[in-house]
Amino acid sequence: MNVPTGLADYVKDNDDFSLFVHVSPDGDAIGAALAISGGIAYLGKKVSVYSRDKLPDMYDYLPGIKQVKLFTELNGMEASTLVLVDCNKPERAGIEGIAFKSSIVIDHHLTESGFGDIKWVETESPATGLMAYYFLKHMGVPITEDMAVQMYTAIAVDTGTFRFSSTTAETLRVASELVSLGVKPSFIADRLYNNWSEGRFMLLQRMLGSLEIHDKTAIAFVTGRMMHETGTRSEDTEDFVNFPIMVDTIKVSVLLREVGEGLWKGSLRSHGDVNVSEVAALLGGGGHRNAAGFRVAGDAQSARTAVLECLAGVTRGGRP
Amino acid sequence: MNVPTGLADYVKDNDDFSLFVHVSPDGDAIGAALAISGGIAYLGKKVSVYSRDKLPDMYDYLPGIKQVKLFTELNGMEASTLVLVDCNKPERAGIEGIAFKSSIVIDHHLTESGFGDIKWVETESPATGLMAYYFLKHMGVPITEDMAVQMYTAIAVDTGTFRFSSTTAETLRVASELVSLGVKPSFIADRLYNNWSEGRFMLLQRMLGSLEIHDKTAIAFVTGRMMHETGTRSEDTEDFVNFPIMVDTIKVSVLLREVGEGLWKGSLRSHGDVNVSEVAALLGGGGHRNAAGFRVAGDAQSARTAVLECLAGVTRGGRP
Repeated sequence: MNVPTGLADYVKDNDDFSLFVHVSPDGDAIGAALAISGGIAYLGKKVSVYSRDKLPDMYDYLPGIKQVKLFTELNGMEASTLVLVDCNKPERAGIEGIAFKSSIVIDHHLTESGFGDIKWVETESPATGLMAYYFLKHMGVPITEDMAVQMYTAIAVDTGTFRFSSTTAETLRVASELVSLGVKPSFIADRLYNNWSEGRFMLLQRMLGSLEIHDKTAIAFVTGRMMHETGTRSEDTEDFVNFPIMVDTIKVSVLLREVGEGLWKGSLRSHGDVNVSEVAALLGGGGHRNAAGFRVAGDAQSARTAVLECLAGVTRGGRP
Repeated sequence: MNVPTGLADYVKDNDDFSLFVHVSPDGDAIGAALAISGGIAYLGKKVSVYSRDKLPDMYDYLPGIKQVKLFTELNGMEASTLVLVDCNKPERAGIEGIAFKSSIVIDHHLTESGFGDIKWVETESPATGLMAYYFLKHMGVPITEDMAVQMYTAIAVDTGTFRFSSTTAETLRVASELVSLGVKPSFIADRLYNNWSEGRFMLLQRMLGSLEIHDKTAIAFVTGRMMHETGTRSEDTEDFVNFPIMVDTIKVSVLLREVGEGLWKGSLRSHGDVNVSEVAALLGGGGHRNAAGFRVAGDAQSARTAVLECLAGVTRGGRP
């Protein structure tokens, strides 16, 4: 992975940087931004990290996280160079229309726009945190234990600690180096995976209790009542849709979450060749081949029927 | 990690090797044994891998696994050199009293006995699979993709794919090399974690449905009826006791599994400083600080009471 020469020059030639993570920031965005900002600070530059949205509590252990600035409105950024981290257009960071001196993009997602004076987008990289590592190396910044924790977290989050298909030999080699710099893998894993509230666990119980299996499809529900009873919020349902995928015969998992009176937010995951983005599209939503989403109105019964019918249509059409 | 000189000489000087995995073999034992046997075969020696117990179906993808010989009784081993893999005394492999020409131990568990003409025990190694890697390197055996898959599996199983505290920088470095030799991390992770039967998933639903939280202790039940209804066997409850540990406030998890009329097998896990082996000892069982087991008679209610009282005694005594 090569850092564009233009990026290095740009960082050297400017003195004031404002890093922004995407809205609903995750561990990759936060970890990568903190490590990059540490590197820019080491180079003697002024640098801040901003987030429009509150950072998830689970990342409180990350060194430097208290320095991340939450903003509702932004003023006086005209002299600062914008760095979008783990996203590639201003809307994704909630800063559309804000004027900066210039702009840099450091991201591993498919480019959605032509935005950025300097664009460094590595779609093959499993995490922006891995790009942060190469950025620091390229800039001659010594990697501290704090930076190692930040980048290991970023990489761990976006690879499911080396379980996803994006995991490469390079990913593990860099992770090894970060561990040699002081990262404790089990400490990070505990923070990422053993951080459930009792309420969230109770909600999982109820969600699993509602689960039905139709042929190779699992469908489960999270109702407003379940969330009320367990004192949970919508973010507590994150990853719930992935649970049924651990059953070897389940090829598609559907989670219907009640987001209002007679309104459901649907999440779809597939394991293998069913393209759930086609299912979501039939319901007015969208997404990727193995992960997609939509919204549907009605009661639980009619929402279930709508999804299963669209799914049947897609699987019939796709593989006659 | 250094392979003892004596071991290398011993392998060179002998011609017929019989590798044995421990009873109820896991991925570390099987993966390590297959890789070591591949290395010994490359050196031009006769070699076989034996298991007393059936290998779990989930490891069917391992190259060479069909060559593992299941045995009920063994004869004519007198000319063969025994290699105990991932265990260090004959009883652990179910071969007590069988005569061999000589014996080698390759293991990462605490030595339980003085057994073995040549002993190579690395208690700091996270997996015997990692020792297999150093064995092959030391013996000058080129690592094939098949061996890489065998050893990556072994290491992944015993480190929870790099989540356990035994994971070192070296572990990740070797894993990186194995991936560069052709291992697909997501393929292995799928085989290890997304291999549940529907029945097992239904049993998990029921187990979670039975879960109670008393202060910082989670206690759950798997009754004979639940297993009957879901068509599951005792091995399907493996790891169930670990689920509640993902709740940040839960320090001790108890699973009571009905193994007969009025008889329960208890599993204990702790996260942090509660020594559950003391709790198990009070109930006539044993184990380690963070993982222990016992048996208790009575109905569900009295079994629950017995465990909670012993636990209260230990935590009171331990931290007044």
